[in-house]
Amino acid sequence: MPKLAYLGPEGTFCEAALRILAPDAERLPCASVTAALDAARSGEADGAVVPLENSVEGAITVTLDELAWGRPLLISAELLLPVEFSLLVRPGTEIPHIKRVYTHPAAITQCRNYLARELPDAVVVAAPSTAAAAQEVSTPGSPYDAAIAPAIAGEHYNLTELASGIGDRDDTVTRFIRVSPPGPLPEPTGADRTSLVAFLRDDHPGALLEMLNEFAVRGVNLTRIESRPTGDGIGRYFFHFDAEGHVAEARVGDALSGLHRLSDEVRFLGSYPRADRVSPELKRGTTGADFAEAAEWLARVRAGRA
Amino acid sequence: MPKLAYLGPEGTFCEAALRILAPDAERLPCASVTAALDAARSGEADGAVVPLENSVEGAITVTLDELAWGRPLLISAELLLPVEFSLLVRPGTEIPHIKRVYTHPAAITQCRNYLARELPDAVVVAAPSTAAAAQEVSTPGSPYDAAIAPAIAGEHYNLTELASGIGDRDDTVTRFIRVSPPGPLPEPTGADRTSLVAFLRDDHPGALLEMLNEFAVRGVNLTRIESRPTGDGIGRYFFHFDAEGHVAEARVGDALSGLHRLSDEVRFLGSYPRADRVSPELKRGTTGADFAEAAEWLARVRAGRA
Amino acid sequence: MPKLAYLGPEGTFCEAALRILAPDAERLPCASVTAALDAARSGEADGAVVPLENSVEGAITVTLDELAWGRPLLISAELLLPVEFSLLVRPGTEIPHIKRVYTHPAAITQCRNYLARELPDAVVVAAPSTAAAAQEVSTPGSPYDAAIAPAIAGEHYNLTELASGIGDRDDTVTRFIRVSPPGPLPEPTGADRTSLVAFLRDDHPGALLEMLNEFAVRGVNLTRIESRPTGDGIGRYFFHFDAEGHVAEARVGDALSGLHRLSDEVRFLGSYPRADRVSPELKRGTTGADFAEAAEWLARVRAGRA
Amino acid sequence: MPKLAYLGPEGTFCEAALRILAPDAERLPCASVTAALDAARSGEADGAVVPLENSVEGAITVTLDELAWGRPLLISAELLLPVEFSLLVRPGTEIPHIKRVYTHPAAITQCRNYLARELPDAVVVAAPSTAAAAQEVSTPGSPYDAAIAPAIAGEHYNLTELASGIGDRDDTVTRFIRVSPPGPLPEPTGADRTSLVAFLRDDHPGALLEMLNEFAVRGVNLTRIESRPTGDGIGRYFFHFDAEGHVAEARVGDALSGLHRLSDEVRFLGSYPRADRVSPELKRGTTGADFAEAAEWLARVRAGRA
Repeated sequence: MPKLAYLGPEGTFCEAALRILAPDAERLPCASVTAALDAARSGEADGAVVPLENSVEGAITVTLDELAWGRPLLISAELLLPVEFSLLVRPGTEIPHIKRVYTHPAAITQCRNYLARELPDAVVVAAPSTAAAAQEVSTPGSPYDAAIAPAIAGEHYNLTELASGIGDRDDTVTRFIRVSPPGPLPEPTGADRTSLVAFLRDDHPGALLEMLNEFAVRGVNLTRIESRPTGDGIGRYFFHFDAEGHVAEARVGDALSGLHRLSDEVRFLGSYPRADRVSPELKRGTTGADFAEAAEWLARVRAGRA
Repeated sequence: MPKLAYLGPEGTFCEAALRILAPDAERLPCASVTAALDAARSGEADGAVVPLENSVEGAITVTLDELAWGRPLLISAELLLPVEFSLLVRPGTEIPHIKRVYTHPAAITQCRNYLARELPDAVVVAAPSTAAAAQEVSTPGSPYDAAIAPAIAGEHYNLTELASGIGDRDDTVTRFIRVSPPGPLPEPTGADRTSLVAFLRDDHPGALLEMLNEFAVRGVNLTRIESRPTGDGIGRYFFHFDAEGHVAEARVGDALSGLHRLSDEVRFLGSYPRADRVSPELKRGTTGADFAEAAEWLARVRAGRA
Repeated sequence: MPKLAYLGPEGTFCEAALRILAPDAERLPCASVTAALDAARSGEADGAVVPLENSVEGAITVTLDELAWGRPLLISAELLLPVEFSLLVRPGTEIPHIKRVYTHPAAITQCRNYLARELPDAVVVAAPSTAAAAQEVSTPGSPYDAAIAPAIAGEHYNLTELASGIGDRDDTVTRFIRVSPPGPLPEPTGADRTSLVAFLRDDHPGALLEMLNEFAVRGVNLTRIESRPTGDGIGRYFFHFDAEGHVAEARVGDALSGLHRLSDEVRFLGSYPRADRVSPELKRGTTGADFAEAAEWLARVRAGRA
Repeated sequence: MPKLAYLGPEGTFCEAALRILAPDAERLPCASVTAALDAARSGEADGAVVPLENSVEGAITVTLDELAWGRPLLISAELLLPVEFSLLVRPGTEIPHIKRVYTHPAAITQCRNYLARELPDAVVVAAPSTAAAAQEVSTPGSPYDAAIAPAIAGEHYNLTELASGIGDRDDTVTRFIRVSPPGPLPEPTGADRTSLVAFLRDDHPGALLEMLNEFAVRGVNLTRIESRPTGDGIGRYFFHFDAEGHVAEARVGDALSGLHRLSDEVRFLGSYPRADRVSPELKRGTTGADFAEAAEWLARVRAGRA
């Protein structure tokens, strides 16, 4: 039974993700993404589950930067978790009693319509996390009457769910990843994703275009591109890429080799099954068989037997 | 005397930026980036100064999203402000008295070495902003002994600066922008920057490569590229670009037109003088004179007089 | 009634092409492509009809070089003429009498199967042109018994056509063009072609890729690319391009302007109706309406009214 | 002592090239390029020397087409031979006696100035080759008084060289190649060239751009690109490429493999030392060491040991 660190406290969306990704795992809540990843690095846990991006808020930059700069970890799985907010109260509280609502600022933004419609007179106060908000509301004597948090937080802190699905959009999703220290990669499934970080050799104009071309010329589609500052001043960036396919596949391996030759550093972050199970449409000439046939042809040419 | 909104409270780096960008302006502190921009949109203020990106933390995503989705505003100036943290205390407090330090989490990260070396036993607590931390410390009876905040906050709240420049790096910079409602653009200076947002027409593989090519083919270098989620699910992004040059210049205008034809929507965010005064090195064939000469040549060709 | 020069003598495929392109024209046979084009340049004729390329033999390089280096001429029309060879003899000659066949080397190559099958024992001798071969055979006392030439040559020289369509392939085609001194261009028809010559600015690696990109980025397809030596040593080339569309169209004009800025010299050779009447499939964002809309958008942006 | 076929008759520039490329070889003159290559294919000769291109006239298309379509042959060497024309006469003839000059049309074109200046009243007649012209002039009773031909032809046919270097340009060069049946390739020398032919998979717009990109992305420069008709109608072409480097080198082999995957067919025509001994300037990341290092990195990544 593996032990997995996650972004706590208990009751976070991250815990919900972990429960789906690894139902049997022992769970170790941590105070921050960094703490969860450090637990995986140090061996205190066997791995970690952390958020990578949200379909409304965007990248979780601390995760991006930890994966790029910290001691190496590999992604072995991903999960797309719908973000569903519930209105949680102490047992007995009813809507008309709610004067003060406590939740994370992202939840305030994403539940703006519900709050305006159902709780127009309530004061809404920013909390460090939605789970922390639920924890606080569960404390007897709390100045807050309700928390907006995932349903799982209600279970943890014995709160009553007065309403569920109160976000303005019902399609908001957070992408979580499971990471572990470097080791054997998951087998290719035919519907995989490869994540990596690339640092430009010298930050010349057109450098990103060249990097993208290394993928394009091998028919490898990118599903995510994020720039992050290197820290060396405004205008200096490095890049996170998610590509379709598994590094064990010829076209992906070839693209990564090309990128590696072009870059100051490429850090491989893992090849793992896509949560959406979508297999890429391969351009003609870029299947594994095409690469194998081309390699045989080249061997014959070099031997003068073409 | 213009009235400019900014990210308050008094004593923020943003106020420091505003004082440099518009020394004579009347200042209107606002509780959030959104509030500051809304003040500029509504006419309550003539414009606003907000942070856009930081050389360590990266983009200020609320600013990116407000500029992309909110009522249009144009950037008319930018400023690169060194981030210098000071240790601020109530008059009379000395280093050995400091048990509890209050500051924003970014400052905790960026002053990690100083804290470990000079205040190894102090408890460090997260505040909503550095200026709010200073304000809190200035309150008689505050549970905190010191704030880490910009020097300007010390002036505002009558705090004593026990140490300055306590960040781990001395080259951290935040880029601030001044925005106003749409209107005449600043004149080209020869060292300008153009900001814009582009939404892909249909999110096909290679779409970003095509967009970058529209700039490259006209010799227009990009200085910043950021992807942001459209909100329509993981894997759907739009892009912020900063390009060298002014939209009044032929090569920049031509690139923007090309991008416009290629995209679902391009939102122009302004052309304005670069803070670093760096003039672009132009590729042969991409100066204004080259474009003018080519236009004349084409006119002759079309008239059968070439 | 215009007077048109052509590659003679009477009875060439070129005469056949001229009769289709300009049935009412007065015809001036010339001894060479250069002579025909010079007649059009000097005013001795109003224009000229010359071959540009053949689907088996390839480009007629003298035509390419004359158009590139000689006094400028513009192409105003093109024609695709099937190449059909006939076996022509003096009246009374029959197959068994034929001992010596006279024709142009290209016809020898293209009628190889017929000759091997029907005239296995005949000697085949190279002539300067197929029409000259017919002319020679028509001369009483000629040492040759038959000519391979176009049927039209048989009419001119009163020869009997013993066999027609004797080429090995029945789909060989020669493309002829009509040229005139510079003047108003033919109106766009929606199915046009544009021809041009481009000299690289400095012959750096990747220069051709950059040139092709100028077309690709505007969605302009190329239908022909030929390299020709500049004369300044092996490894120095210039290029002939045929592009889909008319220079009066925005995307074609824009591509040509871009090419002009990139090149040492671009010589426009004409926009004219395609012989095959094929209209290009336009990529989204590259129609005339798209260009016009983008220009209006840019004007609003520059005026601060976007 | 190898036996090499060449484009005869004796006294051609091709013989001069052969004497330099293989001074000790037995020489077999052939009536045409095709005949010379067929001699090499059939084993009648061990190889052949034929012209490939001329710096003024361009490609020798029969050579291009033979290499592309005929039984495979590999290029093992190249030579750049200056084209120097001499005025050759029977012993005793002097300039004022010359009334009729016989030579190949290309020589007529290239010696136009000399003829106009020194022999303004002479009639100039077209011959099938310069060597054939010399042979004819050497025949007692020939109607021609002089031939323009290479000096070597004068030696063969016992003619007197009245003038040498009479071409209008003194830098005209013909590139000759030595070919043999497939077998071991010449060793890489660091200054090599690779020749090949590529047939597009489906002749879509942008296909050539894609092909060029396969070279560019590996930093392989092209030194020659020629389109040739496939024979299947106007607008259908295949391509000859000359690239810098040897197929045994990683970047060249990788580019050829990529091209092979992209194309209907790639025919390798040989890797051989460049006549000009120029070593390519390699882009960073494209040396053999860079490819080897990237392959090791990829192996580590795939093994989970990166």
